[in-house]
Amino acid sequence: MSENSKETGVEFTSIRIIGSGLIGTSIGLALSAKGLKVEMADKDASAAKLAQDLVASEIAPNPQVILIATPVGAIAEVASSQYLLNPKAIFIDIASVKAKPQLEISSSTLPEQRFLATHPMAGREVGGAASARADLFSGRSWIYCPVYGDGGRVDQDVLDAGLWLICALGAKPVEMKAVAHDKAIALISHLPQIAASLLAGQLHQGAIGDLELSGAGLRDSVRIAASDPDLWEEIILSNSPAILPLLINLQSDLQAFIAELQSGRSIKSFLSSGVAGRARIPGKHGQIAREYTQLPIVIEDKPGQLAALFDECATAKVNVEDLTIEHSPGQFTGLITLALSNSDALLLQQHLEGSGWNVHAPR
Amino acid sequence: MSENSKETGVEFTSIRIIGSGLIGTSIGLALSAKGLKVEMADKDASAAKLAQDLVASEIAPNPQVILIATPVGAIAEVASSQYLLNPKAIFIDIASVKAKPQLEISSSTLPEQRFLATHPMAGREVGGAASARADLFSGRSWIYCPVYGDGGRVDQDVLDAGLWLICALGAKPVEMKAVAHDKAIALISHLPQIAASLLAGQLHQGAIGDLELSGAGLRDSVRIAASDPDLWEEIILSNSPAILPLLINLQSDLQAFIAELQSGRSIKSFLSSGVAGRARIPGKHGQIAREYTQLPIVIEDKPGQLAALFDECATAKVNVEDLTIEHSPGQFTGLITLALSNSDALLLQQHLEGSGWNVHAPR
Repeated sequence: MSENSKETGVEFTSIRIIGSGLIGTSIGLALSAKGLKVEMADKDASAAKLAQDLVASEIAPNPQVILIATPVGAIAEVASSQYLLNPKAIFIDIASVKAKPQLEISSSTLPEQRFLATHPMAGREVGGAASARADLFSGRSWIYCPVYGDGGRVDQDVLDAGLWLICALGAKPVEMKAVAHDKAIALISHLPQIAASLLAGQLHQGAIGDLELSGAGLRDSVRIAASDPDLWEEIILSNSPAILPLLINLQSDLQAFIAELQSGRSIKSFLSSGVAGRARIPGKHGQIAREYTQLPIVIEDKPGQLAALFDECATAKVNVEDLTIEHSPGQFTGLITLALSNSDALLLQQHLEGSGWNVHAPR
Repeated sequence: MSENSKETGVEFTSIRIIGSGLIGTSIGLALSAKGLKVEMADKDASAAKLAQDLVASEIAPNPQVILIATPVGAIAEVASSQYLLNPKAIFIDIASVKAKPQLEISSSTLPEQRFLATHPMAGREVGGAASARADLFSGRSWIYCPVYGDGGRVDQDVLDAGLWLICALGAKPVEMKAVAHDKAIALISHLPQIAASLLAGQLHQGAIGDLELSGAGLRDSVRIAASDPDLWEEIILSNSPAILPLLINLQSDLQAFIAELQSGRSIKSFLSSGVAGRARIPGKHGQIAREYTQLPIVIEDKPGQLAALFDECATAKVNVEDLTIEHSPGQFTGLITLALSNSDALLLQQHLEGSGWNVHAPR
């Protein structure tokens, strides 16, 4: 994996975007705002019309770029039929799985060197053209895979167009091989999704009264289990070669954990491995997450309290990196935990104590 | 499970608290502030001294109540030795597992009817006397188990003292049987902890560069994997009878998921079951979590932005139920997602749009 933040590619002026969901329409909005001619398409004609209204652009008859923003299973078919209509175009996709579409393109009518596989790391949590925003990709990583098959590279004009697109949308281009991409995403996105879904599936065993006792730990652990099953089924099935070894390893660890617990032996090594594994996730701007200091503050649960708290943060000139809010059933106070640099946490604690806030010691 | 919010018990005036960690010291602080005589003890003399300094109380020679705030494995031994010194005292514990200490008390010198097993649902995330706060239990549920063995009940004065303690600390008493408590907590706390630890353990397989691409989904899923392995090993080993059936069921689901994925069959039922299981977790004040509407807002990542945003929330008179902050590596904007009632979300969206904020559509 290498970064090419300085490589900005070569501008193009017309594009057809096939797939008028959140990602496709967001790209359309951003490019239309830059003066490009943008055509929005979709197998659902009303979705295409809404998206075209939103991007409010003229349409070029033979656009230079065809961007495929369909679900992963439709990419090769769409690419083949579009290639027949417009054989000089540059093809780019944005699906969250990369090896399978590259392979399918290799046996389609579209030449592999005319197709750049890419994946913007943004936007999964909202859906549909109506949720689209031109700034959706601002500051996000955007992976691109210029190498296909056994080492072929896409044509230079295809790569130039892809890099220009990524940089024009404010994203950071990150070059990866398709298989390496799929392996990385399997670990950081697909495996947690499956684990959260299976864990949340266990909650059918609990009475609602029992679940009422649950705190932020459970809620955070299963938050992504709310994701759309149709979308995720397709993603998981398309990336099963990368996901299966991870699941089998998790299964083996779970089996070993159960065996140790059944025998009353120590399970500490599993817990310690989890602490160390979690600490490997970088925080914002490449910092390690564990370096943040947590500052717990009890506030009254009513409008205006958070505003007042963040006014204090602004006065103290500290930068809040993250925060969580915790409530209990029937409770009318809330526990806010701010994540800050260690020096900011100490500064803010003193400041808040001096102003009469119910602030706990940083940790 | 029944709630007795109106039962406030009978006040006592002196207590010895064995175990000067976060929970024990927080109880000591709250009771000392109410004018009780509080003695803090610990096998670590310096921890006891710090805690006694913090509670700043006189000590009564034969306190009416002995509160055991040690790790779960030490409860029966501490109870036995304290009973010899002070046979008229009322005994209460606060460990996160209940059946095992009750059983151990039944074969100790302390009569079972003199021991009330309780568990406050608060405070796991910070440790040590220095982090203690008198208001730690304010608004939290506090489970108590007046029934022991095959249906015996603790003496009325023991129950009265326990209920007074819980209510005096601002918590909500929730009566449960010990086995039911352990089963509920196994599902809502111990199982998610183990799942998060095992999932986080898989992250050793990823390169740091890969982990840099991860978003809020992974971070939330493994947040609790950072918990203290020593503390958690003891909790899990003490509650293995309740945890093992849950782990075996999770293991069976994982095995079935792998088999379906290996055969290229549908895995949608697992994902749908996760969606439904997650929706069973109640939100604040008993509301169902999924009833909140999410409102995404893009802000500049600098001091003062959150304050300005919450000023707008206060002006619009909306109540923020929860929020998440998401950053990407190298990014200098942040995505804030507020959880609000549906009407508040629409109100705030209009308000923020009118004030020039970069607010997305609610969902």
